[in-house]
Order: sequence, then C-alpha cells, then structure tokens
Amino acid sequence: MPLSPDQQADIDAARAATQQTRRATAPGLEEELFTAHEVLDHGFVRVVDYMGDDSAIVQAARVSYGAGTRHVSNDEGLIRYLMRHWHSTPFEMCEIKLHVKLPVFVARQWIRHRTANVNEYSARYSILDREFYVPAPDALAAQSTTNNQGRGDVLQGEEAERVLRYLREDSTRAYDHYEEMLSQDGQQGLARELARMNLPANIYTQWYWKTDLHNLFHFLRLRADSHAQYEIRVYAELISDLVAKWVPLAHKAFEDYRLGGANLSAKGVECIRRMLKGEDVTQETSGMSKGEWREFVNILDGADV
Amino acid sequence: MPLSPDQQADIDAARAATQQTRRATAPGLEEELFTAHEVLDHGFVRVVDYMGDDSAIVQAARVSYGAGTRHVSNDEGLIRYLMRHWHSTPFEMCEIKLHVKLPVFVARQWIRHRTANVNEYSARYSILDREFYVPAPDALAAQSTTNNQGRGDVLQGEEAERVLRYLREDSTRAYDHYEEMLSQDGQQGLARELARMNLPANIYTQWYWKTDLHNLFHFLRLRADSHAQYEIRVYAELISDLVAKWVPLAHKAFEDYRLGGANLSAKGVECIRRMLKGEDVTQETSGMSKGEWREFVNILDGADV
Amino acid sequence: MPLSPDQQADIDAARAATQQTRRATAPGLEEELFTAHEVLDHGFVRVVDYMGDDSAIVQAARVSYGAGTRHVSNDEGLIRYLMRHWHSTPFEMCEIKLHVKLPVFVARQWIRHRTANVNEYSARYSILDREFYVPAPDALAAQSTTNNQGRGDVLQGEEAERVLRYLREDSTRAYDHYEEMLSQDGQQGLARELARMNLPANIYTQWYWKTDLHNLFHFLRLRADSHAQYEIRVYAELISDLVAKWVPLAHKAFEDYRLGGANLSAKGVECIRRMLKGEDVTQETSGMSKGEWREFVNILDGADV
Amino acid sequence: MPLSPDQQADIDAARAATQQTRRATAPGLEEELFTAHEVLDHGFVRVVDYMGDDSAIVQAARVSYGAGTRHVSNDEGLIRYLMRHWHSTPFEMCEIKLHVKLPVFVARQWIRHRTANVNEYSARYSILDREFYVPAPDALAAQSTTNNQGRGDVLQGEEAERVLRYLREDSTRAYDHYEEMLSQDGQQGLARELARMNLPANIYTQWYWKTDLHNLFHFLRLRADSHAQYEIRVYAELISDLVAKWVPLAHKAFEDYRLGGANLSAKGVECIRRMLKGEDVTQETSGMSKGEWREFVNILDGADV
Repeated sequence: MPLSPDQQADIDAARAATQQTRRATAPGLEEELFTAHEVLDHGFVRVVDYMGDDSAIVQAARVSYGAGTRHVSNDEGLIRYLMRHWHSTPFEMCEIKLHVKLPVFVARQWIRHRTANVNEYSARYSILDREFYVPAPDALAAQSTTNNQGRGDVLQGEEAERVLRYLREDSTRAYDHYEEMLSQDGQQGLARELARMNLPANIYTQWYWKTDLHNLFHFLRLRADSHAQYEIRVYAELISDLVAKWVPLAHKAFEDYRLGGANLSAKGVECIRRMLKGEDVTQETSGMSKGEWREFVNILDGADV
Repeated sequence: MPLSPDQQADIDAARAATQQTRRATAPGLEEELFTAHEVLDHGFVRVVDYMGDDSAIVQAARVSYGAGTRHVSNDEGLIRYLMRHWHSTPFEMCEIKLHVKLPVFVARQWIRHRTANVNEYSARYSILDREFYVPAPDALAAQSTTNNQGRGDVLQGEEAERVLRYLREDSTRAYDHYEEMLSQDGQQGLARELARMNLPANIYTQWYWKTDLHNLFHFLRLRADSHAQYEIRVYAELISDLVAKWVPLAHKAFEDYRLGGANLSAKGVECIRRMLKGEDVTQETSGMSKGEWREFVNILDGADV
Repeated sequence: MPLSPDQQADIDAARAATQQTRRATAPGLEEELFTAHEVLDHGFVRVVDYMGDDSAIVQAARVSYGAGTRHVSNDEGLIRYLMRHWHSTPFEMCEIKLHVKLPVFVARQWIRHRTANVNEYSARYSILDREFYVPAPDALAAQSTTNNQGRGDVLQGEEAERVLRYLREDSTRAYDHYEEMLSQDGQQGLARELARMNLPANIYTQWYWKTDLHNLFHFLRLRADSHAQYEIRVYAELISDLVAKWVPLAHKAFEDYRLGGANLSAKGVECIRRMLKGEDVTQETSGMSKGEWREFVNILDGADV
Repeated sequence: MPLSPDQQADIDAARAATQQTRRATAPGLEEELFTAHEVLDHGFVRVVDYMGDDSAIVQAARVSYGAGTRHVSNDEGLIRYLMRHWHSTPFEMCEIKLHVKLPVFVARQWIRHRTANVNEYSARYSILDREFYVPAPDALAAQSTTNNQGRGDVLQGEEAERVLRYLREDSTRAYDHYEEMLSQDGQQGLARELARMNLPANIYTQWYWKTDLHNLFHFLRLRADSHAQYEIRVYAELISDLVAKWVPLAHKAFEDYRLGGANLSAKGVECIRRMLKGEDVTQETSGMSKGEWREFVNILDGADV
C-alpha cells in the first residue's frame, strides 16, 4: 500500500477543495487530480497540476498559421495534421506535473529524458523509507537468449524462489545497516549522504516531474513501447491513460501516428513499392541486413516490433 | 490601439467565463487573465494561462528536502532560502503562457532565451498586418558616446523630425509594396514567404510564449535591467509586475537577491574587507582594471550599475 | 561576392596553418575547414571547428552497451542500428561549429532550432553591411494556389520586374536612411539599436552556430526537405554535403532512415497489409481523411512527399 | 587501480598517435588527452576530446559585437568582461568530452545537470564489474549536527570499523547474489535488467559526458563548492584543473568572478554602504534573517561560505 492514512486524508482534502478559474480546464483530468494510482508494489503516479487542453493546442497553432489554418475545418483534423507533420510546438503549449513514486533503477532510466523539470526526494537531507521493489512472480523473467536487453520466460521453482529470497533479504539487511549506521544512539551516526550508498537500486524514491505534452509524447513513445523494460512501461502506460483523459484528441492522434505507426527506411519504402507491383522481394534482394529485414517483415505481418 | 473591437469582445467573453478547478489558483493573476496590457505603440502582453503559485514552489522544495525543510518555518523564509542558494528546480515547477505582440527587432532579442516554448505568427502562411513601431519622441535617443550598445540624449529638432519621417515613410512604402507584390489582382502574386522579406524590423509580430518561473526570472534579470534596450525593457517590466501578482513571495525574493543584488568578484570581496578595516583602497591598489573598478565603485555608491 | 580580399587572405592563412593533435580527426572535413562555401547571392557557410567522427559515435555506443554491442560486427552496421532505433545519444557525441552569413528572414526560421549555441552579429553594437538578398529570376516564385506556405510557378515579365525593382529600391533606400540616421556628421546620430529597425528582412546577418550531430540531423531533416523554403533549403543542402564528408557512415544512415524514409500511421500500416493481401483499398475504405490519403498514396507512388 | 593492463595499453596507444589538424588546438590539454586521472578508490576522469580554446571564445565574441569589441584591447580583458557581464554564449563555443568512472550515487547527482550529452554504461545490456566505493577512513564523516546535508567530524574507533565492515560486506554479498542470479549454469538466469536492482549505490558505473564550457562552469561552481558532497567535489576539482590547462584565461576569470566571488542581496549591498560610512550594523538593524546575516558576515570575514 503506497499511502499512509495521513497521506490519503491529505489527498482527500485536496480533492474536496475547488476554486474558480478563468483558465482552460480539462474535466476528464480534473476528475483524476491528486489521486494516487498504484503502480508496481509500492509505487504510484499522481497528477498534481496541468496547463492547457486540446483547444490550447489548436489555439497556439492558429496563432502560428493565422488565416492559413482556416481550411482545416475542425480541431481534430488540425491536431492530426500537426501530429502527422511533426509540428511539435503547439503540443509544447500544454504542461503536466506528476508526483511519482518509483524504484531507483527506474528513476535512473526516466531521468535520461532531459527536457523535464524534476524535484526528487533528497537522501542527502532526509532518510529514505524502508520500501523496496520485489517483482511479482510473473514479472520474474529470465534473460532473453536472443536480445541482450530483453526478457525471456518467467523463472520457475527453486530458481525463482532463490531470486526472491535474495532480493528480499539483501534489501532488508541493507536497510537495517543503513539505520544502524545513521543511528545517533550511543554513537555519532554516519552522514546521511554517505549512509545512503548502502541501499540497493530497488529502493523507492519519489519526485515531482513536470514536462510539456510534446516531450511527454516522446517519453511515452519510448517507454510505453513493448521494448521498454516492464518496470518503467507500467508507469508509462498509466500516464498514457491519464493523458487520454486530459487531451483526448491529441492522444488519439499520438496513438495513430506514433505508438501504432511505423518508420520505414528508404529501402523499406522501395521494397513495398516493388511488392505492391507483385514482385516477390526477399532479404537477399531487399538491400537490407538480416536484422533490418526481420524488423521490416514484422511491420508487414503485424507482429510486435 | 492594439486590439480591434472584435478581439476585445473575444477577450471580454473569455474573461467572463469561469470553471471549477482543483488546481492551485493564484487570485492576483486570475484577475489579469486574457487582458491585453498595452506596450509601446501597438504591442501588448496578455497572460493566457499559468500553472502553480507560491505554494507550488514550497511544495516541490519540501518533496526534495523532506523532513530537512522543517526547520525553515514558513513559506516566505523557504522561498528566500531557495533563491539565495540558487536552488532553481522548485521555481521550475511554475509555468506561465503569454500572448505577446511585439516589433520584430524586439522578438529577435527575446528569442535568444532558448528555454521557452514559442508559437509565432507565420508570415509564410499568412499576411502580416500594417503595424509598425515608431518611437515616441522621448524614446528617440542618440547613440551613446561612451557605450557601444547604449543610448545618449534624446534627439531634438530637425534631426528628430527626419528620423521619424524616415521610419514612417519607409515602413509605409515597404508595406504598400508588400501588398502590391502579394496581390493576385491581374497577376500571379509573389509567394508570401518571399514578399515578407521587404518588411522592416519595426513591423509587429506576435507569439504565444511559455516558460517556467526560473527561466522567466533569468529573462527578467537581463531584460528588466537598466542596460537592456528600452523597447524590450518595457515588456520585461510589465511582465515583472504580472509575476508580482502571480507569485508575490517569489517575486519579492527575486527583487532582493537578483534585481537589486550585486555580484562581486574575489577581488571585489577582498577590497571590501580591506575597506572595512579602514584601508583606503584605490583602483591602483585594488588589482582591478579601470572598467572593473568603475563598476565596483558604482555598486558601493548606489549608482545604477 | 561574399568575402573581401582581406577576409579571403585571413582564411587562406588559417587554412595554411596546421597543428599536431591526438584528437579524432575527420580528413574529409579538414579539407573543407574555414573555406567559405557560397550560398544565395551574398551568403556563405564555413566550417570553423568540429569534434568527433564516425568512430566517436561507435565508441560512445560501445561504452553504453558494453559487451552487448559485440554481436554487431562492424561500425557501419552499428551506426545503422542506432539510427534505425532512434538511439540518439551517441550522435550527440559529435559537434560542429559553422560560420554562416544569411538573410535575416532565414535566420528567423533557423533560430527556432533551440538546441544550438549561437553568437550572432549584434546590430546594437555594430553597423550592418549594405548587403541584401535579392532572389535570382528563377527563384522568384508565385504564391502556391494549393498550399498556404508553398510556391507556385516562377513569376514572369512585368510582374517579375516590378518585384525585383521593389526589393532592390526599398532595401537601397532603407540602407541609405539607416546611414543618414546613424551619421554623426553635423548631428548627434540615432542610436544603432534604434536605427537598425528601418532595415528590411532581406538584409544579411551572420553568426557562429554550433550544434551536435543528432540535432543537426533533425535540422537537416526539416530544412533539407522539399517543403522547406528554398532560401533555407540551400543552406541545409550545403551543410548536408559537408556532413557527408565529416561522418560518411552516419550521413548515409541518415539519408536512408530519415531523409528518404517515411512515417506511416497505424492506419497506413494496416492499409499496406490489406493491399499486400490483394485488397483494393480506397480512401473511403482506408479510414483516412482526404489529406492523409493523398500523402499516403504519394509515399507508395514515389512522388515527392 | 581503475584500469586493467589492457586498458592502459589502449590508452598508451591512443596517446602515441597524432594527426595533423587545422583546428584550434590547446597544447595544455593535448598533453592530458586520454590519460586516466584517478579519483576516489576506483574512479577516474579522462579527457576524450575537446573543441576550441581561449581564442575561440574571443573569436565568437568578436563576431557578435563586431567593431564594438575593438576598445577591449586584449583577449584576457575581453574574456574577463564577458564573464563579469554574464555574456554566456561565447563560452558555449567550447566543448569537452570526458570519460568518467564514478559511483552510482555520485552519478545520480551529476546527471541532474541536464544540459550535457551522456552515454552511460547500460546494466540492461551488460554486466557491471565488481567495484564499489568504500570511503577512506578520513572521509568517513558523521552527520552534521547543524546542517541537514552536511558532514561533521570523522568517525572513529568501533563505529568507523562497523560502517566500513557493513559497506564492504553488503556490497560483496549483493554482488555475489547478482552473479548467482545472472548465472546460466544449470538454470535460466535472471534478466540483467532485473538482477541489477540488487546492487547498492556505491557500485561504480561509467559514462561519456560532453558539455560546453558555459555549462561546465555552472557545474563546477556548484560541485567544486565547499558545500558539495565530498565524493562529487573531488571529481569537480580534478575537472577544474583540466579546464585550467585547456582555457587558462577563461578559467582564471571563472575563479575570480564565480568560484571566489560572492552574490549580495539588495539588503547586503545596502548594509555594506552603511558600514563603509561608519555605521555599526547588526543583524537586528540589517533587515536580514539570522541565516542571511550569518552568511553575510561570513563573506565579510573571509570564512568559507
């Protein structure tokens, strides 16, 4: 359970209070504001604030293109046009702020998206809580035999048990020692900024994370993808659902053009042209490497790529 | 007058409509939302949207520093602490979106602040309006004789008259020719993306400009400064007033630590120490160049630096 | 002619001097260093400095992926893999610095690429030269009748003559008045920061522009594209040629996956699957709007999209 | 010892090879290229590449300011002027690329500087080495009793011994279990991307890190500061020494205006003016809080602030 009763009471109180505003308001997201959506065993995502909605994207685009946008008759068509043609600046006019609780090894991947604002809980100043991510049995995957960064089958039996035992015991012991090293009971107590180094990467941290919609879509494209590590993908998928409630038209265009779409190389486009003319193109005649060809065929077959 | 009656009616309608929100709301800025504040002869600044308030800064800081912030008892003290110690990330948690109408030569300076989102009116797509900045008589300054990028006395008499005549006539003629080149009446009409190149840098453009509070303070520190060009400074000063209504505590800390403060070099600090011990320090004994010494003395004298 | 004899002598001297270095060196680009490549009527592009080469991309990727990269046997394969899978960080490890002379209206488009470092000639400090872009007769295009931001046929006869006359006369007159306003001969002289506002957008400016290879590819994808305005495209095409000499493997991958490739929507991918099964798909049965369908068909037909 | 004999041989070979280049070359930094400078117990910093030197800063500034810079007669004066007046863009024209090996908890602080390019060793793809930071006895500091994020006295005796034992034993055990979980000997072997979560924050990682000189100075100002955590400060101090060999004039200006300088608030400036007139200003009459006053007095006293 990620929240204490006190924290839940604070959230309930925040949700109960409303103010009048002249700003653009997204009713679907208002409904979700402050609620902690659980992710993994101790994590959560909460929407803390947002700016703009679908109409804010349209409004910004119409400022840019002036009378030139009048021929696109409706908001949905204009948003799809912007997405299709990589006109990213109107999407930057929307902003969202999330409160996220997540394991450190997930945070380390996440932070590589540099175009966001972050305030992370500091283990120099304060003491971390005793909360560690331990995978559910069905997430305990073997190393893929074909993909250096992929997962294979779920571990079973003794092997699975031993992994779970190690993860639990090592984090428990590490945290016990963290507390002992920090303790000022009969001793000086090690500096927090040093003691933290004993903690493993499955400990939970938390942060406020704020980004604009364009960069959020980029994050979601990479992290809600089937190749992303499961432990970050569950966060991305939850956020994607929240974005659908916030800017439904933009989210739908994103799904069509980014998440569900495909990038073809010049060679790939050429192969399709030849195939549509009836030619039987093979890897050998495609000009592609084996890896490229395999990915290309997967696109055409509808396999997960 | 920067707005047409239609535009003013749209703004009035937008201001009249309010919604319920659970988000943090800044009453002082709500009051200003959408209103066009006039700047120069045809320009304006309008706040179109915002995210966060003073308490959002505090909230983000408390997430970062956890229990470590409890010793700073109140919001104002914490905000001043953050500003004094250059802890910039909590200020990044607030965001503002402005609609600005401004001359092109001002826009060219402004855009150099790269950490903002911009949607500018496109003269490739659409036709610019016939609106040009012509300085008021008291803004018609001579080149400074001491500062390459500064202004001297206000021009007078015939010289002033000729300058104003050139600015008015050249922009009028340029715009007449712009329209003639674009015209499709009895001719093909030059492409908009080409015709625009005949227009001078005092023509007005407009954009939506969105940035976070940390970067906005950086903009204001440089552009509300007495060394900034008058034509951008009037925008910065107006925006600074709006920021004071939005986040009054943060703005006050900004004024004390950034706008009104001073940066001293190691040499400058050393000189002050010697002076406070009663030594009579001169440029020769200061270790500073003449330029540095002049600026240093100005800080101590309270002259504008 | 963009360069004075003095400037050309400086360039020749710089090109003649060489030093020993331990750094990665790209012989193809060394050959081009400092040379001014002419663009438009008075513009140029010069490579002033660079960091890294194809092997620097590979080296950075191998640090990231460790032993995991050994299965990709050669540099070209690895670079293609990185490009195909949008692994952008290794490309960020190369950097280039250009000296560019360009018309102001081109500079205004260019500067919207925010992830670059720029030092532009300042017309607050210094006086601009009398150099204006006037299109060659075959670049004097009419407004497109189908595309708000496009060009149609080349203007002919009297219409073309009048446009050229306006562009030449208006810029000449504007510059004459600029000089008169600045003059301190028998008068005070208007401040430079004010006088510049009389100058039209076809005047030339210049800057140092520095960016990394990933962001440069993004710039080239948008600006070397057939939809980009001709006056910026000629710069992008020239830079693309220089990049081919600098990092030939990365440039080739860029051409295949970005410049020559295509992005398909989920709907587009689905249509291709149906077509390859023999179905006769039409706009009506595609689920696409007319605009999307037209662009989709162009991809399959090999028309310029 | 951070490097294996093979790695050292590679470095020696790289250092032995030189090429001819027309680029600006910094002899002082050439001398250091590729050499691994040891930091902490297993870390290092190596300069892998660089672009520009002091004269590149000057060159960029002179492009910006044109004839306006002629009154600053020499390079050092101009660089000091740029630094003093926060003209940051010319410093952005220099770039450096480092190879750094560092503990994960240091990497987590470091990465918060977002304006850099990073390729980090991926523990999803590859297996981390068995190398952990264990503080030297004199770096084993107690928690400060006055500063939430500071250090107090060095731990002694039994307490110190126990801390070192915990750090050593916990990391050894965690790594043993990491290897056991990964092992494919008689079992499937846990996915690398999961197994890594058992590793503590004192394990070493490595990355290529590339940034421009302006952002590097910002990093150094924060991280070479006496308030920075010791374990990142030793990296910053080493890098600062390398920068002094690369761009000696810029580094000297940085030391004077940033590292050794001080920021005064408007209140602080006012107090100094009063003090210089002979007034005996106290905290009560200063208008400052106790915390501000303490920091202000430390500046005047020359105590470390």
